[in-house]
Amino acid sequence: MWTVKEVGLGVVAVSLSVELIVLLVRRLRPRRTLNEVLFFPTETACVEHIFTSRSSDTCLCLLAHGVESSFTRLLRHILSASSSLDLCIFAFSHMDLSRAVCMLHRRGVTVRVIVDKDYVAITGSQIGVLRKAGICVRRSVGSVFMHHKFAVVDRRLLITGSLNWTLSAVQGNMENILVTEEPDLVKPFIKEFHNLWAHNDPARHHSSSDQNPAHFTARA
Amino acid sequence: MWTVKEVGLGVVAVSLSVELIVLLVRRLRPRRTLNEVLFFPTETACVEHIFTSRSSDTCLCLLAHGVESSFTRLLRHILSASSSLDLCIFAFSHMDLSRAVCMLHRRGVTVRVIVDKDYVAITGSQIGVLRKAGICVRRSVGSVFMHHKFAVVDRRLLITGSLNWTLSAVQGNMENILVTEEPDLVKPFIKEFHNLWAHNDPARHHSSSDQNPAHFTARA
Repeated sequence: MWTVKEVGLGVVAVSLSVELIVLLVRRLRPRRTLNEVLFFPTETACVEHIFTSRSSDTCLCLLAHGVESSFTRLLRHILSASSSLDLCIFAFSHMDLSRAVCMLHRRGVTVRVIVDKDYVAITGSQIGVLRKAGICVRRSVGSVFMHHKFAVVDRRLLITGSLNWTLSAVQGNMENILVTEEPDLVKPFIKEFHNLWAHNDPARHHSSSDQNPAHFTARA
Repeated sequence: MWTVKEVGLGVVAVSLSVELIVLLVRRLRPRRTLNEVLFFPTETACVEHIFTSRSSDTCLCLLAHGVESSFTRLLRHILSASSSLDLCIFAFSHMDLSRAVCMLHRRGVTVRVIVDKDYVAITGSQIGVLRKAGICVRRSVGSVFMHHKFAVVDRRLLITGSLNWTLSAVQGNMENILVTEEPDLVKPFIKEFHNLWAHNDPARHHSSSDQNPAHFTARA
């Protein structure tokens, strides 16, 4: 026969167990890590509302309005930066992406850009615009291509893929971009940017003979 | 005062709780998902031991032996395919990568390749080699670049990045590749390959006027 004491003890034991399980579940269930894939090309649409706080209805331009696309997603991820943006990009001529980078710089976000030395002067290159805005840009040294196309936002979010930051890539080509917060993927890119930033420091390459050193050390 | 019955009940309650917690922990703790980043260039080294079961000591070529590099990692990931390899690549002229793809085909792995129509005939292109081996290759249609550089192994593993499958990319350029099993990243690429494979089916493009249709539908 069960006494009141025994039943009470059982209830307390079960309650404590449930409490413990809930606590453990909360601890063990990993926070949802952002993992997103964006494909291009995207259709041409107005992105004014992303740069301003105004509704897209107020814009009078002739482009489509209120369109959410891979490109608007990309812009929003870039503009989510609150402390730093490290950008390593082969070709950069897209004016809206340049506007986003300059906007971050004006907001006080630390922006660093590495570009390929040969592609710095492509038609419509935005590198001059970035430099005029006061953003620190370093050109790759060496005789080979700096073919990366990645950005790291706030040392937290990696944006990388096949897409160069050009209009033809965004609106024409078949391209992809991965956006991820997965630490195992983000951390190596933070390290790579750190290495490339130091390697391409112009202060390290004084004389003209140093302007074209052996390329970045091959990885074993 | 605690009776033997009460203590026994307590022990049973605690044991059951522990059992339940262990079960839940096992269920909730996610299996370690493969996430790896490979950077290039890599140094030139012998990769014969990856294709054969022989030790690298037995090879008499003049290249360095026993080197594990980003390139050997890439080769091993590709050769891990047991059922399918879907490859979507802008430029493909690397002979060792071609050898790996042909080896998979000979093993009975279903290999499908999509390449850019303009870059199919680059110097040293391996597309002819793949076709001669009996691998099904589709060229992109349309006037824009098919600029992807990704592979999906066994519908499980995604290999993607800035790296084209060329010797200059592997041994010269600064490049990156992500290798991941993260379903949120792999699944969209499986879908993209499916769409591109259907879109670039030559049977869909009979007449000469159809050879250059409007590019792949832009994504909203």
